[in-house]
Amino acid sequence: MEGECKRRGEGQVETGVMMEGVHKVEAAPPQSTVDKMKLRLKETFFPDDPFRRFKGQPPMRKWVLGAQYLFPILDWAPNYSLSFFKSDLVAGLTIASLAIPQGISYAKLANLPPIIGLYSSFVPPLVYSVLGSSRDLAVGPVSIASLIMGSMLRQAVNPNTDPFLFLQLAFTATFFAGLFQASLGILRLGVIIDFLSKATLVGFMAGAAIIVSLQQLKNLLGIVHFTKKMAVVPVLSSVFHNTHEWSWQTVVMGISFLAFLLLARHASIRRPKLFWLSVGAPLASVIISTLVVFLLKAQNHGISIIGKLKCGLNRPSWDNLLFDSTYLGTTMKTGLVTGIISLTEGIASGRTFASLRGYQVDGNKEMMAIGLMNIVGSCTSCYVTTGAFSRSAVNHNAGCKTAMSNVVMALTVMVTLLLLMPLFAYTPNVVLAAIIIAAVIGLIDVPAAYNIWKLDKVDFLVCMSSFLGVIFISVQEGLAIAVGLSIFRILLQTTRPKMIALGNIPGTNIYRDLHQYKDAKRVPGFLILAVEAPINFSNTTYLNERMTRWIENENSMEEKETNLRFLILDLSAVPTVDTSGISFLVDLKKSTEKHGLELTLVNPMEEVMEKLQRANKIHDFLGVNSLHLTIPEAVFSLSSQNKLQHQEVSSTLFI
Amino acid sequence: MEGECKRRGEGQVETGVMMEGVHKVEAAPPQSTVDKMKLRLKETFFPDDPFRRFKGQPPMRKWVLGAQYLFPILDWAPNYSLSFFKSDLVAGLTIASLAIPQGISYAKLANLPPIIGLYSSFVPPLVYSVLGSSRDLAVGPVSIASLIMGSMLRQAVNPNTDPFLFLQLAFTATFFAGLFQASLGILRLGVIIDFLSKATLVGFMAGAAIIVSLQQLKNLLGIVHFTKKMAVVPVLSSVFHNTHEWSWQTVVMGISFLAFLLLARHASIRRPKLFWLSVGAPLASVIISTLVVFLLKAQNHGISIIGKLKCGLNRPSWDNLLFDSTYLGTTMKTGLVTGIISLTEGIASGRTFASLRGYQVDGNKEMMAIGLMNIVGSCTSCYVTTGAFSRSAVNHNAGCKTAMSNVVMALTVMVTLLLLMPLFAYTPNVVLAAIIIAAVIGLIDVPAAYNIWKLDKVDFLVCMSSFLGVIFISVQEGLAIAVGLSIFRILLQTTRPKMIALGNIPGTNIYRDLHQYKDAKRVPGFLILAVEAPINFSNTTYLNERMTRWIENENSMEEKETNLRFLILDLSAVPTVDTSGISFLVDLKKSTEKHGLELTLVNPMEEVMEKLQRANKIHDFLGVNSLHLTIPEAVFSLSSQNKLQHQEVSSTLFI
Repeated sequence: MEGECKRRGEGQVETGVMMEGVHKVEAAPPQSTVDKMKLRLKETFFPDDPFRRFKGQPPMRKWVLGAQYLFPILDWAPNYSLSFFKSDLVAGLTIASLAIPQGISYAKLANLPPIIGLYSSFVPPLVYSVLGSSRDLAVGPVSIASLIMGSMLRQAVNPNTDPFLFLQLAFTATFFAGLFQASLGILRLGVIIDFLSKATLVGFMAGAAIIVSLQQLKNLLGIVHFTKKMAVVPVLSSVFHNTHEWSWQTVVMGISFLAFLLLARHASIRRPKLFWLSVGAPLASVIISTLVVFLLKAQNHGISIIGKLKCGLNRPSWDNLLFDSTYLGTTMKTGLVTGIISLTEGIASGRTFASLRGYQVDGNKEMMAIGLMNIVGSCTSCYVTTGAFSRSAVNHNAGCKTAMSNVVMALTVMVTLLLLMPLFAYTPNVVLAAIIIAAVIGLIDVPAAYNIWKLDKVDFLVCMSSFLGVIFISVQEGLAIAVGLSIFRILLQTTRPKMIALGNIPGTNIYRDLHQYKDAKRVPGFLILAVEAPINFSNTTYLNERMTRWIENENSMEEKETNLRFLILDLSAVPTVDTSGISFLVDLKKSTEKHGLELTLVNPMEEVMEKLQRANKIHDFLGVNSLHLTIPEAVFSLSSQNKLQHQEVSSTLFI
Repeated sequence: MEGECKRRGEGQVETGVMMEGVHKVEAAPPQSTVDKMKLRLKETFFPDDPFRRFKGQPPMRKWVLGAQYLFPILDWAPNYSLSFFKSDLVAGLTIASLAIPQGISYAKLANLPPIIGLYSSFVPPLVYSVLGSSRDLAVGPVSIASLIMGSMLRQAVNPNTDPFLFLQLAFTATFFAGLFQASLGILRLGVIIDFLSKATLVGFMAGAAIIVSLQQLKNLLGIVHFTKKMAVVPVLSSVFHNTHEWSWQTVVMGISFLAFLLLARHASIRRPKLFWLSVGAPLASVIISTLVVFLLKAQNHGISIIGKLKCGLNRPSWDNLLFDSTYLGTTMKTGLVTGIISLTEGIASGRTFASLRGYQVDGNKEMMAIGLMNIVGSCTSCYVTTGAFSRSAVNHNAGCKTAMSNVVMALTVMVTLLLLMPLFAYTPNVVLAAIIIAAVIGLIDVPAAYNIWKLDKVDFLVCMSSFLGVIFISVQEGLAIAVGLSIFRILLQTTRPKMIALGNIPGTNIYRDLHQYKDAKRVPGFLILAVEAPINFSNTTYLNERMTRWIENENSMEEKETNLRFLILDLSAVPTVDTSGISFLVDLKKSTEKHGLELTLVNPMEEVMEKLQRANKIHDFLGVNSLHLTIPEAVFSLSSQNKLQHQEVSSTLFI
């Protein structure tokens, strides 16, 4: 400002004023409809402009880049060094020690044979290491997706009476999940997973964690007859109606190992350097408990064990995919829900660690990778897998460098599958339950919920509704409710847009919200309003009613000597209008004239300006003074050309 | 500006600069959560503040006002004059001459006995004249609602084989329609009908008009065996597969009367003063055709006639309401769809003529009135009615003054019901068909569609999809598709928000869209971005990717000597943020720092500012310079405090 005023002071006042006078509202350079459509489509589906690195490259190079885009492994493999491998080896072995017990546990969580969990920790990681663009993601089965798949399929088939059919449905659902994920990526509809807001997920995770833990009471208490339902009430009732089935040996074992795991976890949270404690704990407890059972023949004393698992790698399972119409609905629905959920977890984890290390993860690319991984998985006896957040964190802390750590993990699992399976025969289910509970407890993020409450009450409502919905209704319905609420909220922000009355901040030509800025003053004779949303069919009625009210209030407030003469509508925050919006503005112009008011539009955006011009060709409603570039200019030119004492206004304008 | 600069010139430069320097971004005066919720609820559901006229009134007066609010008749009846009555009498008789033939025709359109159409033009108008707040609305059955009710109920029951059950379902559906409309009004959810945008309606009306006309081919050609389907293809096929059923007498009669009606309509459009021509035509054709049939005994020559209609007024029908579970779904669905459609027509017509005369129509109040009218109707042998646009227009042109014209019409219909019914015995159905066609042709509004095309291509897409959907799929699905598209579009505007890069307009401190304003210049070292939507969970990912791209582009463009130092984010057009939005801003602050950029937020709105402060308590990310009131101030203070040569910037800032 100093510079400006000095200069103006130096006798250029006229030009200064002139210029203030003549700033025209411009329309953007004309563009063909096709070009506009193209641009909009690009902005909508290719915001990250994935092809920009191809621009101006020689054809050969383009091929290489293309291959690297599809197979990121070609990106890092060539300059992969021994030092890298050392780190990846450590990280890989670390996550393997987690993956094996968790794989077995989560498979049981999905009502699948434990070995499926190990299969799913072998093939998918290999696929991902070739296709995935994240360096930290540790791939495998995850608790929540397993839970959902288990619960949704169980509504169609009973896994105990008809395990093979159940298995077939699981593979089919996994296939659909993969298909769905991959197509989301290819169609670049990543936006769909954006609709699971943080608030939704916090509530959902906590709810799911509680559901999962409750489910584990079956194994933790050694109950034999347990409800098939997921919701809190039936589970608790069947826990307390079967107290006679509780076996004290199981309870003792379960509690003690759970305590051990939680303590380890607690320690590693307090002292990040002890994180290996929480990492080693699960495998340790499996080994210890297995030994205990083996030595004490505890299986004969009411402790249920996994039982024989035959050695060998994944069998092909494409012939088990079941597309007959009776179950098609179930499998597709299950695939859809588990697909979205696991995608969300995978991409969220990927992005988190990428941002920690400062590299980019292409969401749509990841979707294709995860999707393809699940399609392949469904043909090789694996159920739905994704990047597990907890294990990825371990992977990251263990200092992994590339997706090679996944390969190491996969190979370790392979060795286990080939040689060590018999050792798991005596592993007690109660320990797996303890491992699951210890793992999912971490999903209950109370501080996050508290922050949401402090920041945004509506978000908290969303969070709670998904939490309670999951707990008391069902996992997928809880999710649906939360998403519905979030979408409804967005719609409401457009259908009930913010409108603010602006006033002048004394000593400046700045105009701001009268409610927000106490020292802002209304300009006598003027009503200056700003709309803070696109003006379209959904809110024109509302805006009409609201406007009328503003004007009435204004007229009732204003003293008689300076009654309302001008209505300035600031369109700076109106990105788009549709036909209803246009006719709203046209009608407003007419109706204000009826009320003896002069309407001026200020600073219409590109698209709005363009449509105003086109509408003007039809309705011819834009007068000389009905468009201004800035509010001060509008106020200045309107008041100076009118009966209002120039002095009075200018005094309010610039003290 | 002149005033400002003169003063500044006069040695107050320092203070001037001081002031520019110290404009703080303020938060609104603190408010309790409850108050905020209250305010938001009020803004959402009571934008028109219906109770404001009660404020500060003595209790007695409040009672009167309340009664007048519920029964607008108390508002106008007291000072109702003879001159008013004269005008209302004329208008009333005029619309009656339309209502009688149309009533009979539309009832047949809904597969109901013709007399139901007359019943529905008797009771509902009386109810509305007591409850309704519009002075121009002419109440009665309308073509589209009749069409929809007929087609939807026909999917459940065949009106020819089981007419009584069909009638019961019609009454029940009407009851639900009324219930639904009234509750929309009471719950103040008028917003729901806002979701039928003009584009949707233009397409829908045209489609419905075509469907209706095609349906009438049955009567126009005298075909006996006709399809029950509504869509174009089956109808046309059954028209041309039954050519042997065509009766030339019927065809001749139909064509000639249709020509007469269309000519009359055309004439009255060309010469508004001849509007009585189009008004009189239907009744005239009924009388003439009836006489012709009667004299020529044409009913024996293949011309189907209405047949005996017994005299008498509406019978009570509440005992015919059918709530048994087999049909409950159908009737409720039908009630919902017809309810919304007729509500839309009624309220739109009401608003249109209200604005022509410059009085207000309270949407929610109208919903209650129309709803109650239909509930009463369903108990008195009426089917769904509303304010018909065409007849209201006639009513308006005929110079009606109050709802009394509806009373006059109702009484005329009553006389007809009591005395004149036998006269309709020989009225040929073909004339009714001609009347319907002539009436609905007017619903096809090609110019409107063309304007939509010129103004907004996406709206045109919506318009066409509802048009084609109605014609080729079904009335309700066509509507659903269009509404779905419109909502998807709103969501897209938030999930893919506009982001614009701002530049300085030389010679001013105005910053505008670089793309829109060719002479706007980027400020070297600065990237100034504005987001044009609420920042929330649905778009943070997008904004992230988009930002990164801006910054990369910028860095690639900028010459080395002045590389990017500052990122200014203008929040003027961001009405709200949610928790995801907040964490987006927090992360942005951190990530920009990583890139060696300084991030500044400009002009956060009330709610955003409040949340920023709360978030700052948690994350403490707002530095000294991270909030500014205006872009020029941000640019000025950032550049002056930094290594950039002050000269260089100020030169770009203020020539």
